[in-house]
Amino acid sequence: MSSSDQLHMRAALALARRGLGTTAPNPAVGCVLVREGRVVGRGWTQPGGRPHAETEALRRAGAEAAGATAYVTLEPCAHHGTTPPCSDALIAAGIRRCVVACIDPDRRVQGSGLRRLRDAGISVDTGLLQAEAEALNRGFILNRTATRPLVTLKLATSLDGRIALASGESRWITGPAARQRAHLLRAAHDAVLVGSGTALADNPRLDVRLPGLAARKPLRVVLDAGLRLPGSHDLIARGWEHNTLILTRPGHTEARRSSYHARGVEVTALADCGPDGRPTPKAVLAELVRREVTRLMVEGGAGAAAAFLKAGLVDHLVWFRAGKVIGSDGREAVEALDLATLAKAPQFELESVERLDGDLLESWVRKE
Amino acid sequence: MSSSDQLHMRAALALARRGLGTTAPNPAVGCVLVREGRVVGRGWTQPGGRPHAETEALRRAGAEAAGATAYVTLEPCAHHGTTPPCSDALIAAGIRRCVVACIDPDRRVQGSGLRRLRDAGISVDTGLLQAEAEALNRGFILNRTATRPLVTLKLATSLDGRIALASGESRWITGPAARQRAHLLRAAHDAVLVGSGTALADNPRLDVRLPGLAARKPLRVVLDAGLRLPGSHDLIARGWEHNTLILTRPGHTEARRSSYHARGVEVTALADCGPDGRPTPKAVLAELVRREVTRLMVEGGAGAAAAFLKAGLVDHLVWFRAGKVIGSDGREAVEALDLATLAKAPQFELESVERLDGDLLESWVRKE
Repeated sequence: MSSSDQLHMRAALALARRGLGTTAPNPAVGCVLVREGRVVGRGWTQPGGRPHAETEALRRAGAEAAGATAYVTLEPCAHHGTTPPCSDALIAAGIRRCVVACIDPDRRVQGSGLRRLRDAGISVDTGLLQAEAEALNRGFILNRTATRPLVTLKLATSLDGRIALASGESRWITGPAARQRAHLLRAAHDAVLVGSGTALADNPRLDVRLPGLAARKPLRVVLDAGLRLPGSHDLIARGWEHNTLILTRPGHTEARRSSYHARGVEVTALADCGPDGRPTPKAVLAELVRREVTRLMVEGGAGAAAAFLKAGLVDHLVWFRAGKVIGSDGREAVEALDLATLAKAPQFELESVERLDGDLLESWVRKE
Repeated sequence: MSSSDQLHMRAALALARRGLGTTAPNPAVGCVLVREGRVVGRGWTQPGGRPHAETEALRRAGAEAAGATAYVTLEPCAHHGTTPPCSDALIAAGIRRCVVACIDPDRRVQGSGLRRLRDAGISVDTGLLQAEAEALNRGFILNRTATRPLVTLKLATSLDGRIALASGESRWITGPAARQRAHLLRAAHDAVLVGSGTALADNPRLDVRLPGLAARKPLRVVLDAGLRLPGSHDLIARGWEHNTLILTRPGHTEARRSSYHARGVEVTALADCGPDGRPTPKAVLAELVRREVTRLMVEGGAGAAAAFLKAGLVDHLVWFRAGKVIGSDGREAVEALDLATLAKAPQFELESVERLDGDLLESWVRKE
């Protein structure tokens, strides 16, 4: 494949990224149509997952799609869903060549889209920027193959890993640019989760307070084994504004649970709880997959962070660090992991580092 | 000043940097001589502080120095020390123009070197890359103006700021590249300091184990109020190999102290001790200035790190971070700072970030 193939696939990946957080349970796909070196159509999965990227690009290209090459970040679908399959649409439009970054792991596709294209005489190339495409749709792929969403753990700490003073004072450790970026991260996830301790201490709204993105409303999830959140809490009192889910242990009375239901907040008890009485991360993720979540961001606190790390269920670590030192009397970002040896510590590889005003944003991915 | 002036001064700064850790109590200076656009001589302060950079550059240039421009990172000296003043040497060599990055704060110089050059008809420009030159010689400047050395605090931690597991296991949190870099940092300091707890737990040799740099032997300083280090400890048993100083509280018997002296290790009691019985950071630094130290690296442990941070005496924070999470049962990098409010936290500005294999090296400077 040529360098211009790479260029067009990069453009398709950039388009695909726009959909993250809005397409679940569908993948976020990008498509670029190129004829005689000229881009004639571009598309990406629309909010809710339809129309698909290919449909969008073909619509924009119109008659110019005939004879074009299609660059698609994920294998075009071959099954009839609510719309006819994209592979058929590409064939009907007269696409001559199709370059695909990665195979769709959905058992209804898994190569059948490519076969259908080839059977129609279209030249098909696969694997271009495959790693990038797989990373982009890690949430979708895990949802389909591992029955769990991708998990991003977001932390904002001092240099020495503290999230608050001993007094609880935590506003603000990081600056406005870092906090805005954290909102942008929320927008790229289908759900955000906090423990009840953090919900009570910080009263977070877990929404996206950025110009133009207020409509992005990831599912708000609170891990609250003891149903400690009062009805006056913002997440409950304003539960009708925004999908909110409390995950708890079994055994609460129907009356107790219905006080939340009355405010539009769903309460689900999970049978699989740890020795601490809290639902296990694994049970939480299974429940979220049932709710079609492909990308979850865990925003703390230290207990939830430790639980997901201990379970080996953190794929992506996003760490905002401010140029301050708080000291050991401050509150830690991650509770005890009870490691027997250093070799057992959860390990991550650096993906990127970025300055955000005076703060540092580090992105780490789990080391396999 | 022109862009070629900048270029030459940058070269002079790069030469100056070579001397850091070897020139105390003298500054590390660089000098470049340029005639008709061609570099005719380069010099930097030699180990022990003599010859000076200008002398070296003039020696290399020989007769070609006549009519040249001299780029010097620090004002040439004007006083007779063990050698004649550099300003006189530049005049005698027939230098036509002299570009100086920053003024020498030593009360014996403070502008008199520049006056002497101007009086001899040499055209003098000052202030080119002044901030860089001052940063480079911060140790020398603080030694002269604040009666303390520059203090670098070096830490190597997990992502969550831990230096060991609860069990004490700490080898190795960071990888070989990071550990080598830490040795290189030692080579650029006049003294390295650890608390006795760290000395006992880690048995560090505090030397420079890098090919070609084994001769760099920064003064090894152990803060040991209780004189807990046994004679068998590497730092004591091999005290004769390498200057070693124990700083302690008053009141130990002469017999106790002389057991260290017998091994070539000096023991100095400092009267100014904190409520914890340990010498205060301020007293430690005053003692080190008395010993002509201009650059001190504090290598831990958590108690020493906290003491220097609390006293506002950390100029430079060098933080190695490995892509691991250890959790709150691990050992902290910085003990309690007892901050009343977040606004009182020691603050730092990011200077640089660098990858060292899988680790991250962050360099932060104190925010004034």
